[in-house]
Amino acid sequence: MKALVFGTGLIGTSVALALRASGAQVWLSDSDEGTAKLAAELGAGTFVPDLRDAKGLADVAVLAMPPEAVAPALSFAQENGVADVYTDVASVKVLPVRRVRELGCDLGSFVPGHPLSGRERHGPAAARSDLFLGRTWALCPLTETRADAVEAVTSLVVACGADAVTTDPETHDRWVALVSHVPHLVASAMAARLAAAGVPAEALKLAGQGLRDVTRVAAGDTSLWTQILAANAGPVADLTSAVAADLADAARALDVSAETAGSGADVTGLLERGRAGVARIPGKHGGQPRNFTVVQVVIADQPGELARLFNAAGAAKVNIEDVRIEHSPGLPVGVAELSVRPDQAAALLDAMEAGGWPVRR
Amino acid sequence: MKALVFGTGLIGTSVALALRASGAQVWLSDSDEGTAKLAAELGAGTFVPDLRDAKGLADVAVLAMPPEAVAPALSFAQENGVADVYTDVASVKVLPVRRVRELGCDLGSFVPGHPLSGRERHGPAAARSDLFLGRTWALCPLTETRADAVEAVTSLVVACGADAVTTDPETHDRWVALVSHVPHLVASAMAARLAAAGVPAEALKLAGQGLRDVTRVAAGDTSLWTQILAANAGPVADLTSAVAADLADAARALDVSAETAGSGADVTGLLERGRAGVARIPGKHGGQPRNFTVVQVVIADQPGELARLFNAAGAAKVNIEDVRIEHSPGLPVGVAELSVRPDQAAALLDAMEAGGWPVRR
Repeated sequence: MKALVFGTGLIGTSVALALRASGAQVWLSDSDEGTAKLAAELGAGTFVPDLRDAKGLADVAVLAMPPEAVAPALSFAQENGVADVYTDVASVKVLPVRRVRELGCDLGSFVPGHPLSGRERHGPAAARSDLFLGRTWALCPLTETRADAVEAVTSLVVACGADAVTTDPETHDRWVALVSHVPHLVASAMAARLAAAGVPAEALKLAGQGLRDVTRVAAGDTSLWTQILAANAGPVADLTSAVAADLADAARALDVSAETAGSGADVTGLLERGRAGVARIPGKHGGQPRNFTVVQVVIADQPGELARLFNAAGAAKVNIEDVRIEHSPGLPVGVAELSVRPDQAAALLDAMEAGGWPVRR
Repeated sequence: MKALVFGTGLIGTSVALALRASGAQVWLSDSDEGTAKLAAELGAGTFVPDLRDAKGLADVAVLAMPPEAVAPALSFAQENGVADVYTDVASVKVLPVRRVRELGCDLGSFVPGHPLSGRERHGPAAARSDLFLGRTWALCPLTETRADAVEAVTSLVVACGADAVTTDPETHDRWVALVSHVPHLVASAMAARLAAAGVPAEALKLAGQGLRDVTRVAAGDTSLWTQILAANAGPVADLTSAVAADLADAARALDVSAETAGSGADVTGLLERGRAGVARIPGKHGGQPRNFTVVQVVIADQPGELARLFNAAGAAKVNIEDVRIEHSPGLPVGVAELSVRPDQAAALLDAMEAGGWPVRR
C-alpha cells in the first residue's frame, strides 16, 4: 500500500508509523512544514514539500486534522489528484461531511473515518505505531462512496491493527456522544460539585475509588473539550438533557420519600437501568465482559513490591487480567486488586500466601 | 482495650479482627447467633451468648449494623450497661442520631462514627483485619458527648489503622452524599443511557476507558443502593438537583450554539469547574495529588508478562505508584499505564527499553 498522511500530529503520525510497520510506503505532509519534517525524522515516512507536485502519489490519503479543516484539505488534495481514495480521522463526522458536500468535493472516493484511539496528547513526538492496536475504527461511507474506496480504507484500518465498524455519519455522532462526549460532561458536572462553595478539603478525605473513577475524565483539557462538545452539539445536548431529566426525577423522588417515607421506586428504576447499561459495555477482548474474580492483596508502597507480587502470580501461571491499586491516604500501604479468571483465583491465593502476603479466602 | 462488637457482619468482624491484631480483648455478639459464632471461629474474638449477662464487659461497644438498627441496639446495650462508651459504624448519621434521641438514650457516652471502608461484600467471612488501614473514619460527636468518650473511640479508630476525621452528623451526611451517594446516582444516570431504546451493541464498541470509569460504580447492588440513597435523601436530593441543573444548562447552551454557532461559554464554565473539582480529590498518602508521570507499555496478555515488567521496574529501584491496564477489545495485547514520580520516569523508560519493551520518549 502507498499512503499519504496529510496532517502529522499525534493521530496522523501514529497512522503513518503503524502503516510503515505493516510494510506500506508512506508520504508525509502538513500545513506546518516543521511538523511534517519532525514526523519524517521519527521514521514515519517521506516528507513531501508540496502536494501540488504529488499527483498520483498514493493509493489512500489520510486527512488527519480537526473537523473544520477536513473539507478544505479534501478539496485541495482532490484538485491535485494526490490519491485514489481519501479518508479522514476527525472525531465527529456530520460537520466535516456537510462542509465536504458544500465544497463540491468528489464523494465517490471519500470514506469518512474515526479511529477511537482514546489518547489526549498532541504532536508527532507523542505518536505510537501501536496507538490503534485492538481499537475500534469507525468508517462512515456516504451513499455516494464507491465500494472499492471502502475496501481500500478498510485495508488501511486493518494494517493499523484496528477493528473497522461501519455506520453513517449521523449515527456515528450519536454514538460518540453517548460513549465519550456526554460521559465527559456528566463527569464534569459531578466534579464541579466538589469545587462548589462551602465544600471544605476535609469532605474530600471521605472520597474513595468510586468518586475518583466517576470524575477522572473531567481533568481533561477544557478548551479541547469545549470544541469537541460544540462540534457535536445536537446529539450531546439531547443525551445530556435526558441524563439531567433522569437525575432531576431521582432528586424529586428522594425529596418526596424524605417527607413521606415513600417507596423510592423511581430511584430504584434508575439504578436498575444503570446496571443494565454498565453490563452492555464490552470487556477485554470484545464481547461480553468476562466475569473476573478480584483478589485483594495489601502491599507495601516500595520499589519491588509489585514485582514480587507479579512474580509470584507468574510463577503460578496465573494471568492477571487487570490491576487496580487502591490509594491509602496517609499511610505507606496500598491494596492491589488483581482481577483473574475465576478458575485461577485459588492458584493466585495459594501463590500470594506462599509469598507471605496475608490472604482472605 | 476491651471492646464489644455488637453486629458481626463484614464491618463489625473486620473491626474485631483489626482490634485483636492490635492486642485488644474482643467480645462478639449478633442478633443472629450463628453469625457471631462464625466470627468467633474466624478468630475475631469471644462469643457472648447474651448481652443481658454482660454488664461492664467492655470499654467500648461498637454497634455494627444498618442505620435503622442503631438506636434500638444502643438503647438495649446501655440498659444492660455492657460498655462505658458506644459508637456505631452506619454510613449515614442524621437518621440514627435522630432515633437515638427519640429513644432517650444516654448521649454522653455515644460517639456516632462511620469508617469509609469502600467495600461492598457481606458477612463475617468477607471480613479483613486490614479493611480500615489508611482509610478515613468519620466521628460525629454530639454536643452532649463526653470528651473521654470521644478519646476512647478515637483510640479504637487508631487501633484499626484508620485516620479519624471529626465533624457533626448533618455535615457528615452532606459529605458522603457529595463523595459517594451522588456520584453513584450520576454514574447510574449516565449508564442508563447505554441501555436506552435504540442503542445497538455496536455503539458500545466505541467505548473507551473513560466510559468504563464514569459508569463503573453503577454496577453496584440496586436494593442496597436504594436503601443508602433513601437514608440520606435530603442531601442526595439537593446535590443531585444541582448536578441535573448544571447538565440541563449545558444542554441548553449547546442547543443554542448548534443554531447560532454560539460561544459555548456555559459549557466551558462547567468543564472548568469540573477540573477544579477533580483537582481537590486527595491522592495517595493524603494531601494534594502528586503529579505523577505516566509511562505506557504495550504488554502481551499472558502469565508472567506483568511480573517481567515489574521486575524490570523494581530492579531499577523505580516505585510504581499506580497501574492501569487498558483493555484491548479483540486483541491479546494491552497497554499498561505506569504512574511514577517524574524524577523516576527516565529510569523506568531505560528499564523498559532494556527489557525489550518498545518505549516512547
